[in-house]
Amino acid sequence: MRITDIIGKKRDGKELSTEEINFFTEGICSGSIYEYQASALLMAICIRGLNSRETADLTAAMARSGETIDLSEIPGIKVDKHSTGGVGDKTTLVVGPIVAACGVPVAKMSGRGLGHTGGTIDKLESIKGFRTSLSREEFIRNVKEIGIAISGQTGNLAPADKILYSLRDVTATISSIPLIASSVMSKKLASGADRIVLDVKTGSGAFMKTLEDSIELAGEMVSIGELTGKKTVAVVTDMDTPLGNCIGNALEVKEAIEVLKGNGPDDLKTVCFELAARMLELGGKGDIAACRELVEKSINNGSALKKFGELAEKQGAVYEPWDKRAMQEAIVRHPVTAPHEGYIYCMKSELVGKASMLLGAGRETKDGKLDHSAGIILYKKTGEYVKKGEIIAELHTSSRHLLPEAEAMLVQAYDISSEAPQTRPLILAYVDSSGVVRY
Amino acid sequence: MRITDIIGKKRDGKELSTEEINFFTEGICSGSIYEYQASALLMAICIRGLNSRETADLTAAMARSGETIDLSEIPGIKVDKHSTGGVGDKTTLVVGPIVAACGVPVAKMSGRGLGHTGGTIDKLESIKGFRTSLSREEFIRNVKEIGIAISGQTGNLAPADKILYSLRDVTATISSIPLIASSVMSKKLASGADRIVLDVKTGSGAFMKTLEDSIELAGEMVSIGELTGKKTVAVVTDMDTPLGNCIGNALEVKEAIEVLKGNGPDDLKTVCFELAARMLELGGKGDIAACRELVEKSINNGSALKKFGELAEKQGAVYEPWDKRAMQEAIVRHPVTAPHEGYIYCMKSELVGKASMLLGAGRETKDGKLDHSAGIILYKKTGEYVKKGEIIAELHTSSRHLLPEAEAMLVQAYDISSEAPQTRPLILAYVDSSGVVRY
Repeated sequence: MRITDIIGKKRDGKELSTEEINFFTEGICSGSIYEYQASALLMAICIRGLNSRETADLTAAMARSGETIDLSEIPGIKVDKHSTGGVGDKTTLVVGPIVAACGVPVAKMSGRGLGHTGGTIDKLESIKGFRTSLSREEFIRNVKEIGIAISGQTGNLAPADKILYSLRDVTATISSIPLIASSVMSKKLASGADRIVLDVKTGSGAFMKTLEDSIELAGEMVSIGELTGKKTVAVVTDMDTPLGNCIGNALEVKEAIEVLKGNGPDDLKTVCFELAARMLELGGKGDIAACRELVEKSINNGSALKKFGELAEKQGAVYEPWDKRAMQEAIVRHPVTAPHEGYIYCMKSELVGKASMLLGAGRETKDGKLDHSAGIILYKKTGEYVKKGEIIAELHTSSRHLLPEAEAMLVQAYDISSEAPQTRPLILAYVDSSGVVRY
Repeated sequence: MRITDIIGKKRDGKELSTEEINFFTEGICSGSIYEYQASALLMAICIRGLNSRETADLTAAMARSGETIDLSEIPGIKVDKHSTGGVGDKTTLVVGPIVAACGVPVAKMSGRGLGHTGGTIDKLESIKGFRTSLSREEFIRNVKEIGIAISGQTGNLAPADKILYSLRDVTATISSIPLIASSVMSKKLASGADRIVLDVKTGSGAFMKTLEDSIELAGEMVSIGELTGKKTVAVVTDMDTPLGNCIGNALEVKEAIEVLKGNGPDDLKTVCFELAARMLELGGKGDIAACRELVEKSINNGSALKKFGELAEKQGAVYEPWDKRAMQEAIVRHPVTAPHEGYIYCMKSELVGKASMLLGAGRETKDGKLDHSAGIILYKKTGEYVKKGEIIAELHTSSRHLLPEAEAMLVQAYDISSEAPQTRPLILAYVDSSGVVRY
């Protein structure tokens, strides 16, 4: 088998065999295939596409390229959740405890934030003492004991994906739906869950800007799950506007706690409860209506909140997470006002995320340091009417000198107009192996 | 300007600006653009194409990337000739002396052979004493004094093309007509001629297998010439069958001399005389009919043969090239016979070239050594009827042990059938800036 023949086939729009895809994936890991050959094939894939079988084969080959986590010691159906990333997305902090409280084990590997999106691990680390580096033994023991553990990625999951992703980033081959789908799913397959719920974000603050592309991506990932034997469903949710009102690590943990207490903003609640219900459904807790009831009950009876407390305690938190002493508060708080009157027509979520990063809540490069207390509280969001000078948001940071740039960026993120925007539902579609339901 | 944006534009099928193409070409030479980025763009070009303007811009940028030869010291219109390569193609050895004898200066840079095709420089070096490494001064002085010089490439012509070509070779991006056209023409633009005649080979032994592709390639190169201010015409000629009867360096020189003497095989004569007439036409020697007459005259009055003698003498040949002592003859000669009766339906020219290479006439790698006396004389070619056991060819070599493999390959190159093949003209099309004429 020769890599140039494989590249040539895809260049001409032909289908690659399982053996050819395995040869490629193994070759990029062993170094027998050069980066310039991999990037030529990636570009051919980007333009010519991959069919579902090829996509699933690539995903499985990438998943096999490194370690795979074995969760078989944990009894029950292990359901994983993955979000394609957005601004203010703290759903894992809410959904994990709910699902665990309802009796489906949550063995969750999460990542750190980079650029304008945050990461669950960073958020949890804003709780004093919370340890996110669990050994594999501890991780599994915790799930067995309290039904939930959230840990940073251990080991070397899907190294082929890491190689291809870093190449795609510098060769304009990011925007291929089969490649995005296989990148996400390769890590999920390696993480050992039995079933997967995907939260595919759509809109200005998401990677996929249009609903059509988001549904296509969701369908591709569901199909990969189907073909690799891991039942997968996807919920397509709005990311035109940041999710919830808080952006920044400690602020997002607080907001998640509010939701677990039965309070918190409606948009965040809607998305979290839907994802939790879908996870319970996959976890065998009945049909979707029954699962939605279970979710509601776990909030109303306080069991989900209690589960979050247990999780925090188990992973080393010094105080209960809702204790005032559990998280640092920002020293500097600065109100941002509306520059003129009108409807908030839309928000550039990416800019909100970047403004939060500038305040210290995120990192531009992998090695950047975080200020856990930094971030933004949005008092007004898309659709609301504001008067000139009215406070629309509050900036939190430890360094006053960071305010001007962040404030300018946040103001830019608000598009205030005399016209009221059209609204669309938060949950836009549901995709499983039987097809797409649009709401 | 960012290379990822440029790659992304072409990925999406958009047109690149002159500035973007220059940025890319300069970047690959300076190393600021990585090979994996270049190969991604090459693949995008391969699939999406380049329009004529983009192709001409890429060609000009590659020509500018290294040294350019200044022939302005030589009076008159300098006309270059280039063949896209085939088996038995010794046209330069015939056409150069004819054109020079007719008063159009020939300042020809030629290459060495690689793989199954030979190179003019190797062929000339089979003449004892013939020097092909001329200094630039000597090269120009010789053209001024006797109207002709043939030299190996001096200096660093179109290094950007070298980089891109070597990448294309290993990333399945060879087969793009705009990329092939710009690769050929970049070296021609850098070589300093005023006008260019192209011999685009078509058929099984050529790089372009179909007439349509060959005409497209010819048109692309003519258009590059037009857009870069170097009038270019192309003749599309058959390469289903090796050109002439001799393959191998000394054998080909001998056959070229036969043509200059007015003898030699018809197919070789037809192609050589047409190319020479087109060069004279571009050199301002009248219309094509007048130029064809000039060619004929130069053969009939012996001036073309005499010019070849002058060329050889000037470049150091010890004997006149038609002197028996001028070239080594092969020690081993071995007849090849027809395995069965029938028409030679077609010939796999590439295999004929490879068999000749195996005998020592060519090199598999750049550093391989040649046996100038080695090669093949074809006694029978496509269309002829042969009896079983009849001699169809003769292998020449210095090493008897090379015979079996070469013989087996040559026999395989002959497709003998009960059916007589259809014939097609040798000169299949003529392309200039006003369009295509098919014969």
